[in-house]
Amino acid sequence: MELKQALESLDAIQKKLYAFGTASSSLYLDGVTVAPKDTAAGRGVALGILAGERHRVMTGPELAETLDTLEAHREELDRSQSRQVEELRRELRQLTRIPAEEFMAYAQLTNEADDVWHRAKEQSDFELFRPCLEKLVAFNRRFAGYYDPAKAPYDALLNEYERGVDMAYLDNFFGVLRQRLVPLIQAVGERPMPDVSFLHRHYPVAQQKEFSDYLMQVMDLDRAHCAIGETEHPFTLNFNSQDVRITTHYHEDDVSSSMYSVIHEGGHARYELDVDPALEYTVLAGGVSMGVHESQSRFYENIIGRSRPFVEAIWPRMRQIFPEQLADVTAEAFWRAVNKAEPSLIRTEADELTYCLHVMVRYEIEKALIAGDLAVKDVPGEWNRLYKEYLGVDVPDDRRGCLQDSHWSGGSFGYFPSYALGSAYGAQMLANMEKDMDVWGPVAKGDLSHVTGWLREKVHRFGGLLTPAQVVANACGVFDPTYYTDYLTKKYTQLYGL
Amino acid sequence: MELKQALESLDAIQKKLYAFGTASSSLYLDGVTVAPKDTAAGRGVALGILAGERHRVMTGPELAETLDTLEAHREELDRSQSRQVEELRRELRQLTRIPAEEFMAYAQLTNEADDVWHRAKEQSDFELFRPCLEKLVAFNRRFAGYYDPAKAPYDALLNEYERGVDMAYLDNFFGVLRQRLVPLIQAVGERPMPDVSFLHRHYPVAQQKEFSDYLMQVMDLDRAHCAIGETEHPFTLNFNSQDVRITTHYHEDDVSSSMYSVIHEGGHARYELDVDPALEYTVLAGGVSMGVHESQSRFYENIIGRSRPFVEAIWPRMRQIFPEQLADVTAEAFWRAVNKAEPSLIRTEADELTYCLHVMVRYEIEKALIAGDLAVKDVPGEWNRLYKEYLGVDVPDDRRGCLQDSHWSGGSFGYFPSYALGSAYGAQMLANMEKDMDVWGPVAKGDLSHVTGWLREKVHRFGGLLTPAQVVANACGVFDPTYYTDYLTKKYTQLYGL
Repeated sequence: MELKQALESLDAIQKKLYAFGTASSSLYLDGVTVAPKDTAAGRGVALGILAGERHRVMTGPELAETLDTLEAHREELDRSQSRQVEELRRELRQLTRIPAEEFMAYAQLTNEADDVWHRAKEQSDFELFRPCLEKLVAFNRRFAGYYDPAKAPYDALLNEYERGVDMAYLDNFFGVLRQRLVPLIQAVGERPMPDVSFLHRHYPVAQQKEFSDYLMQVMDLDRAHCAIGETEHPFTLNFNSQDVRITTHYHEDDVSSSMYSVIHEGGHARYELDVDPALEYTVLAGGVSMGVHESQSRFYENIIGRSRPFVEAIWPRMRQIFPEQLADVTAEAFWRAVNKAEPSLIRTEADELTYCLHVMVRYEIEKALIAGDLAVKDVPGEWNRLYKEYLGVDVPDDRRGCLQDSHWSGGSFGYFPSYALGSAYGAQMLANMEKDMDVWGPVAKGDLSHVTGWLREKVHRFGGLLTPAQVVANACGVFDPTYYTDYLTKKYTQLYGL
Repeated sequence: MELKQALESLDAIQKKLYAFGTASSSLYLDGVTVAPKDTAAGRGVALGILAGERHRVMTGPELAETLDTLEAHREELDRSQSRQVEELRRELRQLTRIPAEEFMAYAQLTNEADDVWHRAKEQSDFELFRPCLEKLVAFNRRFAGYYDPAKAPYDALLNEYERGVDMAYLDNFFGVLRQRLVPLIQAVGERPMPDVSFLHRHYPVAQQKEFSDYLMQVMDLDRAHCAIGETEHPFTLNFNSQDVRITTHYHEDDVSSSMYSVIHEGGHARYELDVDPALEYTVLAGGVSMGVHESQSRFYENIIGRSRPFVEAIWPRMRQIFPEQLADVTAEAFWRAVNKAEPSLIRTEADELTYCLHVMVRYEIEKALIAGDLAVKDVPGEWNRLYKEYLGVDVPDDRRGCLQDSHWSGGSFGYFPSYALGSAYGAQMLANMEKDMDVWGPVAKGDLSHVTGWLREKVHRFGGLLTPAQVVANACGVFDPTYYTDYLTKKYTQLYGL
């Protein structure tokens, strides 16, 4: 194969992968938004075949020959082409490194585990889920050896979700968090809690929709390229950098739920919309990793969205949209209410301050499980012990304890830390941003263009052209978790008058 | 290839075709319902690749070998397998009979013609469109020879849209229509017209949506398998027999527009939902032809939906939903209003009585164009002459004349007659239905289950297991257009007291 032909083939194959991905996304989006209730079976058949076609293209002779050719001409490729080859090779290796029979057995196991986990959670019965979890852990320990036999098993798994991240990196990270945040959370707990009752007045969906439209406008999300829909569990989906969808869920008795889900998903969307269009239809299009993505969504949601200047900026419009509900509420009271911090049991409902400790519990347990230092049967006890130690709460049952998340039943071990890393990256980005420019002056006027401009320049535009570690280095410098703990300490000291 | 292997391959290939079709439909549906405005480009790339993949599967060596093997074992196949082989062979022949360069030149031409036609229509300037139309006619005359050199060119084209239909069949059909309907329309035109002003009071979208829900319930369209959305131009889309979507468009100043579009699309949906699930994921799944499909949609819309018993049956609920708008209206007045018949210029807005004459104009012109008996430059003159002759109206400009439809610019010659045939098939089905059972008693009580049951048994369940001609024979017997003209004569004699 000639270089020229290989470059054409590189484009053509990536366009096919894009098309299969787009088709699957479209079916998925339809399924969770407008599809009739009893229609999953037919979509499942189509999705299965599209996944098979994707696999066929990825493991076919054309891609192999294309990559071989391009790797032999490495010095003639531009940066983007090199990265495309690197990423495709990486994915191809990932697809083929697990023996086919094991892969199929694992797919069957996760499929079954999902069902068992649902039932176990419903009945709060860990013993029901235990045999599945034991098999899942055993599979993942074995897979880690396929991924990278030179690494400790959990390091090999972590690397799957956030390349370059390992236990040494995370032990330092979570060590700093534990040391600084546990006492901070205790101190906050001794102070009086803000009034949040007005968040739970009646907020009709129609008014909330108007508010969502306004928030998207503040975030400069161009509605000609970014739509909003409704789903049970909000998410962001990107077809390409010109076509991004966010979803939210309206609770009429909680104005802050949809508000912050729109800002959170809006942060994901901002990232996707700002990726360099030159990367379109390649494997480098879109956000680079889950951790970097969370850094952006949580930046907009927490660092900007729950800041006092932002709340003050949107307050006049909020009062217009919800005149009766907010008649007796001040911007300051609202800001305090949406920053109420209190140790709790459920990760997905946790506030900004305590969230990372929920993640830390999962990190410690995964680390011990995959190392073989913790038996699966001892997970509930260890879970409850760590919740008491880090958050000071007693876990009443496994439903609200170690059975609350779907990740393990889905076969994901090593995924959780990205949630916490994203938050910490964001805080360090803020510190650098503040060095470069006046962040809060414009935000106080409802103008996010400077913030978005900075993030676009340092993070968004690169898509997958840089690795996750390179993006973090570019926007944060050398990662230092004390930026994050300092940020939280300052914020909550101010909020709770510590 | 062994028979067993060929049968497996037959299933697998059809599942792939289903998956590509489903994916494309999903992207299309998204595009016309919820997608942001400026996102067509990325969808276009994906759709193009999916079409290419479909073409690859259809023209690949596996399908060829599969069909060869199965054709050699014809006597060992069951009826469904035989028909699948027949349909796939037919489509494969269709895909390969036009030389590739001509096919590509034609695709480019239709793409360009669409744009030119839009502009020509806007400016009401036939001369602008004339060169395109000349090329389109020339291509189609040549294609007709590829399709079937033994047939007259227009017969070969007609056969593409409704197999078994030719000029002899249509000359007889339209001859009867002309002879019986032209005087009927004249007689109606001499009578006073019913009051329709109350149809154009203010009907808010929310109330109309409630009405749509009710109409779908009356048609027994299970919402767990059939959703309704909103689009500019209403249509029905079927993913499979368990997943069908209809769309409508709400005009607040016209309650009958969305009402009858819901019943019309509901008729299409009824057909799709009632196809035997055993045909799922094969080329026989779904309605068999456009003509038969229109027979069903127009049956529900006109024959049932605009009948007096039906209007009387839904009237109490209509009055509940629109208490103010219909306070001074009777069911009889409403029935008369939605059956107002008046010659007009635009086919898509024509009433039940005059509709077929619009189609007849197009048939006569296409027939002459493809035969070479009419020059493209003479189309506007001939169009206007025929509108005067059949409908008695003067065409003021080409925008409201020969430039009104998109079919020719899209390359479709021979498509129009199916619209009229569908209506006529429906009338003959009604006559047979009335012989088999009491149709109007249950309808007058709002119970359509007997009507639907009859159509399911005679038409719907077969999907593509029978050819269009077999389905028509099954439900109509020997096709006789006087059933249709008798039906219209009876209905409009009663309405207008002729």
